[in-house]
Amino acid sequence: MRKPRVLVTSGDPGGVGPELILRALADPEISGLAEFTVLGDPAGFRREAEALGAPLPRIRPAGGPAPVPVGRPSADGGHAAVAAVRAAAGLMAGHEADSLVTAPVSKEALRLAGYPWPGQTEMLADLCQAHGLRVLLMAGPLRVVHVTAHRSLRDAADAVTRASVLRTIELADEFGRRLAGRPPRVAVAGLNPHAGERGILGTEDEEAIRPAVEDARARGIDASGPASADTLFPRAAAGQADLVVAMYHDQGHIPVKLLSPDDGVAVTLGLPFLRAAPDHGAAFDRAGTRTASAESMKAALRAASQLAGRGPAAARGAR
Amino acid sequence: MRKPRVLVTSGDPGGVGPELILRALADPEISGLAEFTVLGDPAGFRREAEALGAPLPRIRPAGGPAPVPVGRPSADGGHAAVAAVRAAAGLMAGHEADSLVTAPVSKEALRLAGYPWPGQTEMLADLCQAHGLRVLLMAGPLRVVHVTAHRSLRDAADAVTRASVLRTIELADEFGRRLAGRPPRVAVAGLNPHAGERGILGTEDEEAIRPAVEDARARGIDASGPASADTLFPRAAAGQADLVVAMYHDQGHIPVKLLSPDDGVAVTLGLPFLRAAPDHGAAFDRAGTRTASAESMKAALRAASQLAGRGPAAARGAR
Repeated sequence: MRKPRVLVTSGDPGGVGPELILRALADPEISGLAEFTVLGDPAGFRREAEALGAPLPRIRPAGGPAPVPVGRPSADGGHAAVAAVRAAAGLMAGHEADSLVTAPVSKEALRLAGYPWPGQTEMLADLCQAHGLRVLLMAGPLRVVHVTAHRSLRDAADAVTRASVLRTIELADEFGRRLAGRPPRVAVAGLNPHAGERGILGTEDEEAIRPAVEDARARGIDASGPASADTLFPRAAAGQADLVVAMYHDQGHIPVKLLSPDDGVAVTLGLPFLRAAPDHGAAFDRAGTRTASAESMKAALRAASQLAGRGPAAARGAR
Repeated sequence: MRKPRVLVTSGDPGGVGPELILRALADPEISGLAEFTVLGDPAGFRREAEALGAPLPRIRPAGGPAPVPVGRPSADGGHAAVAAVRAAAGLMAGHEADSLVTAPVSKEALRLAGYPWPGQTEMLADLCQAHGLRVLLMAGPLRVVHVTAHRSLRDAADAVTRASVLRTIELADEFGRRLAGRPPRVAVAGLNPHAGERGILGTEDEEAIRPAVEDARARGIDASGPASADTLFPRAAAGQADLVVAMYHDQGHIPVKLLSPDDGVAVTLGLPFLRAAPDHGAAFDRAGTRTASAESMKAALRAASQLAGRGPAAARGAR
């Protein structure tokens, strides 16, 4: 069986991305999993590999060789980060790779470079013409898909609709089948405390979430809920659910980061290919200090390798 | 030194309260901590103690001896629960005890009995003419005080004001001093993802929470924040803060219940005395089955014993 081909973007070269990629790929347990190709500035990676005493992976140039200041957000860092993602999207569209890992970019650097996207998920949505993407966080025993992510809490409450919850459950179900080869148990959290306590503590749980769970069950998905989030996560962590659907950022991120602060992976659901990323930012304050943990990057490379090619098409028996 | 005098209300006699009280007090590690007095129906406790083969603690009658159906909410259960809390509030007001533990009641039973309170915290606020109470959850390494608790998520966002956050920080600080005898480090969570990311993801973090933290610091409190909740809880669990201020129910309850599903204690801050309670409900479905965990009740009895008499007055050197 040939190894999966995994693309890895450099992220913002002024942040910790390049260092973490090189340190993660220097681990033979990781480098043996796939045929990795890094997209970025070859000269920059060569210098960094020498400084680290790490082997140089296969590099494919992306963007110009403009020197990027290390340790702070800059327009040049933003341009380099976007060039790598653009190159990756093109290669993925041409089926020249099986999955994608993106190293972290900086919202501030993207802004300085004049781009409209707050992050790579939105960038990939645009480049791939994909809509309704969802963020799955996986770490330790938990797999959590979010109905909403980077919105204020009030906006998140507005965005919890029957349709948005149903789409999230469907994407969770599809990913769970891909992961385990069987229909997963999808546990859906409530929006309000005690999942609204039959409407006493808010209406969304009964009016949006419960109908969405019923819709999903009518489509053959093993969905349950809405359940009080504070009792749901301990049960899920104990193996009583395969995936959790969380309504908003903190509801899903708090339990994941509490159980696994260092090795979380974010997977984007709804793209035409699998994309995984470490669940931390560009960490400019750590750039060049060699103190950032590479565990989350390793976990992202592992996920992209193991889940590559096991997409919906493969699951249906097609090659 | 004389032992602290701790009152324990029966809770709803149709739920798990009486059983858990007897099983917890049957543990010599617990019964030796204080002079416990249980408030409830003596005949009911005598029958339950015989059935369990547990020693009978000191009982003080509260309410009439109406038989309460076991395993479901009933008006009689609601009346019995309220009678025990009324008796406790009277004894606490007369300084006949040093702290209070309440066993769980049922919102539904209170409603059936015609009472206006959704729970014992609201009941005690009324009986003690106390306002601005806050719920502290303690379990494992975490101590979390909530600005809001049983409100919809939208109402909670409305209730996060500079004044409500400041009061919560002050109560957290006061409790922390009582707990450790020194000013605690109080870490304040943001309301929005990434604590609003400088206003991009919601305005409350900059407009209400940050000014409240500054107010608290101006009063000599070691407060910090607002911080992104998903990174704050792992740091607090690792010992980098003594107390966390959470903005809403799930934000504080998810991490506490995830780290310690079975031995959480709720402490009410802002009452004229210390009140602790197990952090679970009346669990009618478990009543009579002997399957409910007594760990949370034990933890509540332990907290009420150890923190009794170490109130603000004692801390100031007065008896």
